Amino acid sequence: MILNPQFNNEVQHLGPASIRNSKFRIPFWGMDMNGGFGEKDREAVYRVIRERRDVRRFKSGPVPEAVLGRILTAAMQAPSVGYSQPWNFILVKDLEVRRKVHAAFQRANEEAKGLFAGERGEKYAALKLEGILESALNICVTCDRNRFGPLVLGRTAQPDMDLFSTVCAVQNLWLAARCEGVGVGWVSIIKPGELAALMGLPQGVVPIAYLCVGYTDSFAPEPELKTAGWLPQVPFSDLVYVDQWGRKE
Amino acid sequence: MILNPQFNNEVQHLGPASIRNSKFRIPFWGMDMNGGFGEKDREAVYRVIRERRDVRRFKSGPVPEAVLGRILTAAMQAPSVGYSQPWNFILVKDLEVRRKVHAAFQRANEEAKGLFAGERGEKYAALKLEGILESALNICVTCDRNRFGPLVLGRTAQPDMDLFSTVCAVQNLWLAARCEGVGVGWVSIIKPGELAALMGLPQGVVPIAYLCVGYTDSFAPEPELKTAGWLPQVPFSDLVYVDQWGRKE
Repeated sequence: MILNPQFNNEVQHLGPASIRNSKFRIPFWGMDMNGGFGEKDREAVYRVIRERRDVRRFKSGPVPEAVLGRILTAAMQAPSVGYSQPWNFILVKDLEVRRKVHAAFQRANEEAKGLFAGERGEKYAALKLEGILESALNICVTCDRNRFGPLVLGRTAQPDMDLFSTVCAVQNLWLAARCEGVGVGWVSIIKPGELAALMGLPQGVVPIAYLCVGYTDSFAPEPELKTAGWLPQVPFSDLVYVDQWGRKE
Repeated sequence: MILNPQFNNEVQHLGPASIRNSKFRIPFWGMDMNGGFGEKDREAVYRVIRERRDVRRFKSGPVPEAVLGRILTAAMQAPSVGYSQPWNFILVKDLEVRRKVHAAFQRANEEAKGLFAGERGEKYAALKLEGILESALNICVTCDRNRFGPLVLGRTAQPDMDLFSTVCAVQNLWLAARCEGVGVGWVSIIKPGELAALMGLPQGVVPIAYLCVGYTDSFAPEPELKTAGWLPQVPFSDLVYVDQWGRKE
């Protein structure tokens, strides 16, 4: 039973809490469970997922090369359709370039403000939505739509799979950064065409994410837009169906 | 220095390996570093990212409700544009439904086979690309393009951000499953329109991912398409630019 990962869920709940929670528990049987992940490992994975935040407030100071290297390596370990690895990572350090990106954000954000009326518009205007200039660096994550040629395994029926692969890389990057204490914020209020021009992207390469990256004084306990009362959390049970859309178990 | 996360990279390398690797190291100073993530925690996060695989071979036996609940909760903790949480998760257990999805896969896969010529086509035909019928369950992850109405903060300049948010949820689900020892494989060789019809999706809701989920005998040491020689790994240095596309540091 101990060697069979699918029963681990039961094994976990054997024994009194004092033993289950003991630091000796993991070395004794936890290391071979669940595809090699012990209870503490799982806790770390769930915690990084739970405590990842969209960060818009940054401290001064650089992110060390070694940390950045680990974060980018994690991004490149994302799944990619047909193993096409369509991503690139442009590390935007130059302040002149960032000022131009910031101006593109401001233009798109002014347009957006006009769309939200009344109290909603006031709330929108009060939100801090980016940290382009004050973060340690920005990272533009792109997708090369012709990497390894036009024919890609797994893209024949769903041609946007390369975009989705690149998003998986962004999420890996985000989680890796969080466990390093590095904040990441995704700025989506920039017109993709303007961003592509500012980054000098060739034909066939599209920007997927523009990220602000750097150390931060704190990771908010909850998503900021939830705390600000912008939208409520959708309950778990409203999001899960069985066999067909709309069917509850 | 110990209290300042941005110096942890240096702190990590102080002291002989016997002390650094000791189990006493983490409780002593590791817990307050890097936004609360100690060295062991970071290792677990990087390991789950590195060891996640696209799984197509499954063992029989169900995934316990508690495990599935944790995996889905992790998915729902993904970032979403404007906190719109546009995702739903259809747990496809019924074998009749899965047979229809499998038939849709087979149709799309026959079309795909015709596109890869010669030796490439033979290699393609020999690959196992899905585990729809033999996995414990399938999960169709969808994106509601009108959740909370048509106007969403952060989607005004980039309307596909809701699709990307849903992909972030898929990647969270995938990583959470990996640390539970549960394999996940993304089947993208199905026409989205056919999948939407089979899942009964209403207007405005689109399928993003169709996942096979279940326990597996092993997680491959490397991506299967890399091992099979389908495509090579792209070197890190080819994927990273500075300030502009194509510029190396």
